[in-house]
Parts: sequence; C-alpha cells; structure tokens
Amino acid sequence: MIVVLKPNVAQEKEERLIEWFKGMGLGVHISTGEYQTVLGLIGDTAKVDMEMIDSLDIVDSVKRVSETFKCCNRKFHPEDTVVSIGDVRVGGGNFCMIAGPCSVENEDQIISVAKSVKAAGANLLRGGAFKPRTSPYDFQGLKAEGLELLKIARKETGLPIVTEIMSIADLDLFSDIDVLQVGTRNMQNFDLLKELGQTGKPILLKRGLANTLKELLMSAEYIMSSGNENVILCERGIRTFSDYLRNTLDLSAIPMLHELSHLPIIVDPSHATGIARMVPPMAMAATAGGCDGLIIEVHNDPPHALCDGAQSLTPEEYAELAKKIKAIREVVA
Amino acid sequence: MIVVLKPNVAQEKEERLIEWFKGMGLGVHISTGEYQTVLGLIGDTAKVDMEMIDSLDIVDSVKRVSETFKCCNRKFHPEDTVVSIGDVRVGGGNFCMIAGPCSVENEDQIISVAKSVKAAGANLLRGGAFKPRTSPYDFQGLKAEGLELLKIARKETGLPIVTEIMSIADLDLFSDIDVLQVGTRNMQNFDLLKELGQTGKPILLKRGLANTLKELLMSAEYIMSSGNENVILCERGIRTFSDYLRNTLDLSAIPMLHELSHLPIIVDPSHATGIARMVPPMAMAATAGGCDGLIIEVHNDPPHALCDGAQSLTPEEYAELAKKIKAIREVVA
Amino acid sequence: MIVVLKPNVAQEKEERLIEWFKGMGLGVHISTGEYQTVLGLIGDTAKVDMEMIDSLDIVDSVKRVSETFKCCNRKFHPEDTVVSIGDVRVGGGNFCMIAGPCSVENEDQIISVAKSVKAAGANLLRGGAFKPRTSPYDFQGLKAEGLELLKIARKETGLPIVTEIMSIADLDLFSDIDVLQVGTRNMQNFDLLKELGQTGKPILLKRGLANTLKELLMSAEYIMSSGNENVILCERGIRTFSDYLRNTLDLSAIPMLHELSHLPIIVDPSHATGIARMVPPMAMAATAGGCDGLIIEVHNDPPHALCDGAQSLTPEEYAELAKKIKAIREVVA
Amino acid sequence: MIVVLKPNVAQEKEERLIEWFKGMGLGVHISTGEYQTVLGLIGDTAKVDMEMIDSLDIVDSVKRVSETFKCCNRKFHPEDTVVSIGDVRVGGGNFCMIAGPCSVENEDQIISVAKSVKAAGANLLRGGAFKPRTSPYDFQGLKAEGLELLKIARKETGLPIVTEIMSIADLDLFSDIDVLQVGTRNMQNFDLLKELGQTGKPILLKRGLANTLKELLMSAEYIMSSGNENVILCERGIRTFSDYLRNTLDLSAIPMLHELSHLPIIVDPSHATGIARMVPPMAMAATAGGCDGLIIEVHNDPPHALCDGAQSLTPEEYAELAKKIKAIREVVA
Repeated sequence: MIVVLKPNVAQEKEERLIEWFKGMGLGVHISTGEYQTVLGLIGDTAKVDMEMIDSLDIVDSVKRVSETFKCCNRKFHPEDTVVSIGDVRVGGGNFCMIAGPCSVENEDQIISVAKSVKAAGANLLRGGAFKPRTSPYDFQGLKAEGLELLKIARKETGLPIVTEIMSIADLDLFSDIDVLQVGTRNMQNFDLLKELGQTGKPILLKRGLANTLKELLMSAEYIMSSGNENVILCERGIRTFSDYLRNTLDLSAIPMLHELSHLPIIVDPSHATGIARMVPPMAMAATAGGCDGLIIEVHNDPPHALCDGAQSLTPEEYAELAKKIKAIREVVA
Repeated sequence: MIVVLKPNVAQEKEERLIEWFKGMGLGVHISTGEYQTVLGLIGDTAKVDMEMIDSLDIVDSVKRVSETFKCCNRKFHPEDTVVSIGDVRVGGGNFCMIAGPCSVENEDQIISVAKSVKAAGANLLRGGAFKPRTSPYDFQGLKAEGLELLKIARKETGLPIVTEIMSIADLDLFSDIDVLQVGTRNMQNFDLLKELGQTGKPILLKRGLANTLKELLMSAEYIMSSGNENVILCERGIRTFSDYLRNTLDLSAIPMLHELSHLPIIVDPSHATGIARMVPPMAMAATAGGCDGLIIEVHNDPPHALCDGAQSLTPEEYAELAKKIKAIREVVA
Repeated sequence: MIVVLKPNVAQEKEERLIEWFKGMGLGVHISTGEYQTVLGLIGDTAKVDMEMIDSLDIVDSVKRVSETFKCCNRKFHPEDTVVSIGDVRVGGGNFCMIAGPCSVENEDQIISVAKSVKAAGANLLRGGAFKPRTSPYDFQGLKAEGLELLKIARKETGLPIVTEIMSIADLDLFSDIDVLQVGTRNMQNFDLLKELGQTGKPILLKRGLANTLKELLMSAEYIMSSGNENVILCERGIRTFSDYLRNTLDLSAIPMLHELSHLPIIVDPSHATGIARMVPPMAMAATAGGCDGLIIEVHNDPPHALCDGAQSLTPEEYAELAKKIKAIREVVA
Repeated sequence: MIVVLKPNVAQEKEERLIEWFKGMGLGVHISTGEYQTVLGLIGDTAKVDMEMIDSLDIVDSVKRVSETFKCCNRKFHPEDTVVSIGDVRVGGGNFCMIAGPCSVENEDQIISVAKSVKAAGANLLRGGAFKPRTSPYDFQGLKAEGLELLKIARKETGLPIVTEIMSIADLDLFSDIDVLQVGTRNMQNFDLLKELGQTGKPILLKRGLANTLKELLMSAEYIMSSGNENVILCERGIRTFSDYLRNTLDLSAIPMLHELSHLPIIVDPSHATGIARMVPPMAMAATAGGCDGLIIEVHNDPPHALCDGAQSLTPEEYAELAKKIKAIREVVA
C-alpha cells in the first residue's frame, strides 16, 4: 500500500502516522520527493482501512498495490477454472448453453420447453421457481412446487437444472438442484454467499445492477473462501442513464474478467435487454466477445408467459440463434 | 394503463390484443387517433406485465396510470406517518438525531460514545454489530456480543438502539432491539423484508446504491403489506460516475419522497460522503432540505476506529453540528 | 400526447387546462376513468412543453405518443441510409473499416500507418489533427498541418480521410476532408451541428459520454434538418460507475438504433475500452451485434505515440483482427 | 507519478521501461517490494500519458501524485477568489442571488421579472437569449434581440446581467454583457473556453451532466490559463439512473470543490430538479451546504412561459424563499 502525504506536512504529524503503521506490524518505506513524501507499507495490509487513511488531513491519497481478491485471482491461479455439472463442463474452452423459461409454470410447459431447447443444442435447463420481484404484488414463483417440476423436466431430458435461491431458509429444498443461481439483488447478500460456500455445489453468481467488477469478484471470494471453488460469473446488464433498453449489457466485462480471474463468465442477454428481438444480436456479440456460455430465456408461448414474456425467444428462434452461436464460436475459439 | 399501438397495425392483430386484454377481465377503451390507436385498460391492471406488453411488435409504448405502491402512497394516506420508538417520535414534524459508532468495539467505547452523543442532543443510539463488508477478509462485526453491548449502553443512557440486521437467521437475536436497520445491500432482499414485516418493530430502510425512489417505496411496500407500518426511509448516497466522494448524496430525494409517500425520511451523510469533514455541511443541507432526521457516525477516537473511521465525527464536532442543525430546523420547520 | 390528470381534480381547473390546450390549436380527446381523467391531445404537439405540463399541480403524468425525431426516424423512412464517401459505401449491408492513429504526428508516421491499414483491409483512414483534451496542458494536435499530412496520406494510398472538427471557426480548413467527425464532447454543440448540416459532407457523429439514444438521434436531427442526410452514428462507450475500463461500450445500442433509425451505426472500441488488448474482442462483439463498421486506432509504434498509445493496435494486430471481423460478418450478414 | 509493476516482470523489460522514462527527462526512484517493484517518477510528469503507461503489459497500475490543475488549485492559491461584477461580489463570504426567466420573451416580461426579483433581494438578473435545446424543432431563443432586451432591463433596474453564450461566432454580441454563462452541454467546448479566457469577463461555468469535479476544474483551467481568473463554478445536477426528477443535484460537490479550489461555487436548483415546488427545499439545502450563491428561475406567468415553465417560481414564491435563504445564511456563514 502506498500513502502519499500532502505537501508541507508537519514533521511530527508525519512521524506519528509512521509510528501508527509500525504499531500495526507493518514495515514503512519512506521516500521523500521534491514536494511530497510517499510512504510504502510492507506486510499484511489487507487489514488496513484504506478509506480511513485516505481521510486523514495529512494524507493526499492512498493506493493499494496488491489486489484484495485472492482465491479468484488469475495472478495466483493462472489456469482457467472448469466447472463440472454432471457431464457438462463450463470454462477453459467449454461453452455452455443454458435455456428455459423465466418462470416454471406447470409440468407441460417446463417439459415442453426443456425438450425444445435440448433439441436446439442447450445443455442446461433454467427456470425460475423462487422469483425476486420488485413489487410484493407481482407473481413470486411456484417455489417448492416449481423445483419439483424442474426435477421432472430433468428426468425427462437429462438436462441438469439451474435455478435461483433467494434465502438461506430455503437451502434444504435445493439439495438436489444442480446449479444454484444467486440473483442480481442478492450479489451482496453476504450471509447467503457464505452458506453457499459450504455446499460445494456449482454457483452461478450474477453481477448486481450497480456493482463493479471488483465487487463481483469479492462476492465470488466470499463463496470461494468458504470452501467452494465452483463459481460461474454472469454479466446481465448494469444500470445506467441510457434509454429504450432495460439495462446496459457490459460486454467489455468479459475480456476484463478473464484477465483478472480464472473463473468462467457467461452472459444473460435476456434480462439485460428485456426485449426478445434484441436477444439474438446481443447473444452473438457476447459470444464473439469471448464469453464461456449464454443463459437465455425461451418460452413455448411468449405472449402468455406469466413473467417477463417480453424477453423470451420462441423455441424456433432459439434453435436459429444456436446455429449462429456455433458458427461464431468457430471463428473466435 | 394506457397502451399506444404502432401506426398502421393490421386490424386483426389489434383485435386479437384487445380480446386478450378482455380475457384478463379488463375493460378496454379504444381511442383512434390520426396515426395511431390508443387503448385505455380499465380494472385491476396490477397483474398486467407492462414490459411484456411493451415488447409486442404492434405496441409502441405502455404507460401505467396508477402507482403500483399502495400502503406507502400519500395519495391514499395523506397524513404523515409518525413512527414511535419508546418516547421518541420520527416524522410529522418530529426530528430524530441518531448517532453512534460505525462498529461496536467494546463496552467502554460504546458507553462513552453513547453518553457523549446523548449530551450533544442525540435521541437514538446507533452502532454496527453485524457488518456487511465487501471483502470476506474485512472485520465482520462483534455480532451477538455487539448487540449485548448496545443493550448495556441503552441501559446506561436510556437511548433506544438502532442496528443492522443482515439475515433472517439472526432474527431471534434482535428481539430486544428497538429499531432494525436494513442496509443498502439488502434493500431488495425480499425474504428479509417480508420477515421484518411480521415483527411490528420500527424498520430503518436504507436506499440501495443504485435503486430508484420507486424501488425504495416498493421495498417499503414489502414490509408494510406484511403488516408493519413502522417504516423509516433513509437516503444514504447513490452510485454515480462522480469523483472524490464515495457516493452522491441525493438530497432532492427528500422533498420528492415526501410528496410520494407519508413515511418519514432521514439522511445518512456519513456513509454518503465517507469523509468526516464533509459530514457537517451535508447534514446541514439535508436538514434545510426538509428531512425528518439524521443518522451520523460519531466515534470517541476516530483515527483508531476499526471500520470507516474516516467518516466519523468526534463527540465535540457532533455537539457543534447539533447546535447548527437546531438553528436550521427553526428556519425551515 | 397523453395527459393523465390527478384524482379528484377540481372541475374548473380541468376545464381551464383543456381550454388552454385548445387555445394552442390542439384537439382534446377526454376520457374519464374510474379515478382519473386522461386527455389525448391531437394535432402538432411538437411545440408543447412536456415538462411544463408535467409539473402542473393537477397533472399526474404526460406521455408523448409520436417521436420528436422525424428526419432520422425509420418509421418515416424504412430503408437503410447508405452514405457514400468516394467509392466507399457505409450502411445498408456495406461495412466500413476505418483505421489510423489517434493523432497525426508527422508525414512518415501517417503514410506508414495508412499503407499498413490499407493492406490489412481498411477502406477509410482516420487521424486526429484537432484534439479535444480534458487538460489545456495536454498535446492539442498538429491542427492545420495535421490536415495537410492526412491529405498527403490520402494521395499516397487512395483512402478517404476522417478527422475531427471542433469549431465552426475551422470550417474552411476542412473543405477538402472526406468525413467530418463530431466528437463526444461536441455532440450537443448545436451551432456546430447546424453548420455541418449546411456542408452536405458525410458526418461521423459520436455519441456523448452521457447521452441517451434519443439525444443522439436529436443531434443527428440538427444536421439533417439543416439539409445534410449523410450522417453516420457512432457508439464509443458511455460513462458509468464501472471500474477497470475507461468507459462502458453500449453494444445494445446497435440493434436499438437500427430499429429506431435508418442511419448507419459504427462502433469505436478503442476509445471505449482505452486498452489495446480489449479492442479485438470488443471489435468482434460489435460486428456480431450488427454494426455497420468499426473505427479502430492503429499505430506503427504504440508505446511512443503522443496520445492514447495505450489503446492503439499495431498494424500486425489489426491485420489479424480484420480477418476475424470478415469471418464474423459472414455469419451475421 | 507512481508506477506499480506486475509481479515477476522480466528484468530486461523493467530496465527498458526505466530507460524510457529517463529518456523523457524524468528521475526514476526504484523501490523493490516483496512481490512487486514500484517506480516513483520525479520531474515534470504532466506530459506523461498516464493511460498509456497503465496499459503496458508489465504495468499493474499508475497513480498521479500531483494534481494536473494549477490555476484553480487551492493548494497553490489558498485564499478564496472573489469575482467582481459591477458592485456585486461573489465568493469569499459574498453570496449572490441570480434570478430571472428561463428565456427572455419580450420587453414587458423581462422588465417586470427584473423589478420583481430585485425587490425580493436578487442582485443579478439572468435570462436566456441563445437557448441550447435538445431538439432543433424547439424554441431557440430571441438571440441578439434577447440580449438587447436584457440590457434594457439592466438599465431599468441596475442589475448586472448573466446570459449564456453558445458559440465563438457570437462573441461580439456579448461585449456589453456582464457575466457570460457556459452551459452544461458546452463545458468541454474547449475552443469556446479558450476564447472566453481572453475576454477577461466574469464567466459562469456550469458543470456538464456527466462530468466529474476534476473535469469541471480542468475546464476552468482552460479559461484561467488563457488569462481570465474570473470564473464562477456552478453545480446544476448530474445525470444518474434516479427517477421522478430530471437530474440529481450533487450538493456534496460544494464542500469538495471548496476544498479543491479557491473559485466560488453557486448552485442552480431550477434546472437540476425541473419542478418548481422542489426548488425552495433544494435552494435552502444548497445554502446550508455552503454555496456562494444561487441561480433560480423566476417568471411572472409560469404556466405560459415559452420554455421550462415547470421549473420557474413566481415572484412571490421567490421573495418568500429569499427570506429563508437569508436566515439560513446567518446560521452557516
């Protein structure tokens, strides 16, 4: 950690600060410049409160030299992580195609969609049973019943299932689910992350609407430092001032996260755009940008879907898109 | 709800849409303009998925006429809500002064700060026991022990206590806490909100870093529609591109929330700015802008605080500020 | 335009508002709902100040039915615009590859880069002569001399040239330039836009850092309504809270702008990311997302470039990328 | 400037970088840590392209130690700047009250408003003659005629006048205007700023909708380094995701800009909120937050104003507000 002092700091204030750092067990390397003194702190600075130091009246600025994320940091783990879900592999050159309806509605629906997306090339089935809705008056999902319907669809098609968990209290219900999704609004629900870190199950961690890449990685760190290395990151659009689309899909997160971390990163163009006809171009763009997979909403009857129908593709549209995704993969992989 | 169709829509598509609305039990008022047809939907449109309608290829745009929030809506409840916490009242002309350390550290510290802020005019004591931290490697709070220390400080000073709850699993530990705070990162942890709705206790609901005013009100709605009307809203800064300060304190939220809702709204200038010397001007600004109270970090030894020391005032600075707040209240109240 | 009144508005206030609209020459269609009255305004509402109406105390909300942009609106001009620059075509299925250095530095440099990028498949040469820099102390470009060097490079290679104009005062100097670029910071320099509307020359209009798609189209409208239809839109990243990259490239703007407007849209991954190694994945993503061309910085000696070297590709890297772009075009076009 | 290298960088690459810095005339201070090497650059680093260095593959991060703004930096000029406009002083404890209509409409209107606001305590008159409008179809102001009407109002009341200049081409028309305003959209119109730097006239520089405080100060630096020190900064709301209000008024900019710079800073609550009834609370908040003045829209007939009527106060509302502002000033000044 580097601490830049303000110009003309009183000698005794500077010394008191240095003593304080030493009292924390840190080495202090002092470099006196023309106008300003710069202190280099050596040792375990993870416990130093950077903002507090930054706010001291004799301090001009502070900079951390080493990253605070460890487990998910590519510097310390150069090879790509490959997450295994049954026979499916994600990351390290393995591309996953996750598809399914926004909400599980009934047995016919989920089995029908599962068969369609499998035929089109999907290798994982998604479907919402517990639904986080902005309004308490909106449909909240079939909950436990929805999970059972997903398992029936898995049995019929062989596709492993991905579905969102919203609360620690529901953990037992998810014991037979293949991939547990942490939604956008829970990315910093740290108690939930710690619990998931103890399950060992593959976790699909969605980026929060207003979270930085560093915060996303720190949330992955909560899961991994609790003992679970099976984390898949997911970019799903961030909140900006922009108009006409629900969120702004941040595709430059793909190459940057790949550089910072060894974890696989997938993209959700359905929630980001909120409009079915924008999904195919953004899915193709994400693929060309180097993501490790796509999670896409598909519904057999989009205009009548109970939730987010606006953003679901029909099975036919999905099959068409899957072909183009494959062709783009051949160019970029 | 108003649905504007695109120009030159095929007659049969328009009719099919109208039938579909009628099938949902809605009345449809058709208004044919020079270029475009506008449909007015009458009845319980709360269940209509606005985004789905908006995405239909024959639809140009959709507009909801009635607000989706009910319990916290001033239209349906014109008088200010006054939340009672022991003898303290918040809202409806009653101004609250909540103060205390970021984290509870030990008995001496919390009692000493509690006495200081009481002497300066605070009427509620805050202190973090369960701490939501971006990094799993940062200090996570004294947890249950911290809650016990807060109760001791309450006994010593008579100040009711305000502290953050992060998880449903901890609910029993908070049975004797006066005000339960929902932090920024949990504003849309809907399961937590629903549980808190069943406690009947005063809830301090902080706005999320990237949440709109409407979303804040919808989260209050989760608590209130579960049966608990004792909700205090809190503006604590939003995430923007701006530099030099941690977040952007959105003070125009105060008069706008007062117009939209009858709930009291307080302001947290400490977390918003992250810099102690910016706290007094922003506390005064918030007061002049019409808020119903302030929550401010005070520490008896700021440079050695375990957490967020940068943003804490000393007891002397707080006492000084409290006098000015009082003088400004006399101008605006 | 639709005006939704608040519930329980006094009859006489409502009537006064209706009279006022009629006084502006508008027809008023009154629709009385269960709780609220909705007014539909018919006629030329472009002159109605929507925000003013919205702020009246009896008005709940206002919604414009027809778009305010006309010339660039696909509704009124369904076919793609194709902009011609010498033999080069942009839009309507024609993909352009614009490349060159951030700044023109000297004759050798610009000729060398121009030859390299032409060999790699570029069909337009870019290079900055007038440079908008945040700091007055940073290099401001070679100005008139830079324009002359660009013309020499054009003569040597046959590539038409694209360069930024910052001020009306410089217009004469640009009479022999093929494409005039309006930079991010000048997107709403309306006097400049109007003047460019009178030149008839192809204009490359870059989206401002914090401008909506609607504002971008309204700025195109300034050029087009002054008589110049040769406008190429350019997405170059927007300002968000995100970290690690300079700006957030908003690729979902591509399909949305194509839906709203008939103008071609190209993408600048160099300025958006600010990091050379992020340019190829984002260029490929933009191509897969359906853009009509790319503007990319290439420098023969990136680490020594006077400006923005960080984001320039070498000619070899560009040649490599151009091949992949071509392959992706074959999949999506 | 501090350059942190990545871990395990090849010795020869490190040496080549050091040589390159030395070749630029800089001293290099090398500090070898446990894992990483840190280079301290000494000398005139203003010309070093920080982003380029940051993008080199052996570089982890870069930090500038000294600020790039000089003329407006409080470090080099500790006393408050006081700008004189006739007998009016702004800054250094002198509070200005600028008021008037959004647009100058006709002689009666501007004289009537000028007399009203003077009577209420305003000491400067504002009024738009050249109007920057998002749409080319909106009213663009009375232009030269509007300037003449402002001068007549000045003659009648003695109030110095403030009005916006949009283009260098209009500079002659403004020779007899007291304060030239640079609008939000032109904050980075660098050619305009340089020209204004040569006039010596007081300049009111509004912050751009998506500009950082540093960028605002760098734009002030363009004016000041061209020879004009009479700059007044203006916060007028920034663009965020927030709803219900037009922009987010960033009042924490007031104390932070006062810390960074010696220039006066005023606040425009009218444009920030866009709603007349939100103007008084935000004007009071800004005053309590320590600003050096307010610029507020006042119109004698708000609902019929040609532009932005929604945000204008009546003369009576302004007079009422002015009294409260004075009372708050007595508390905070």
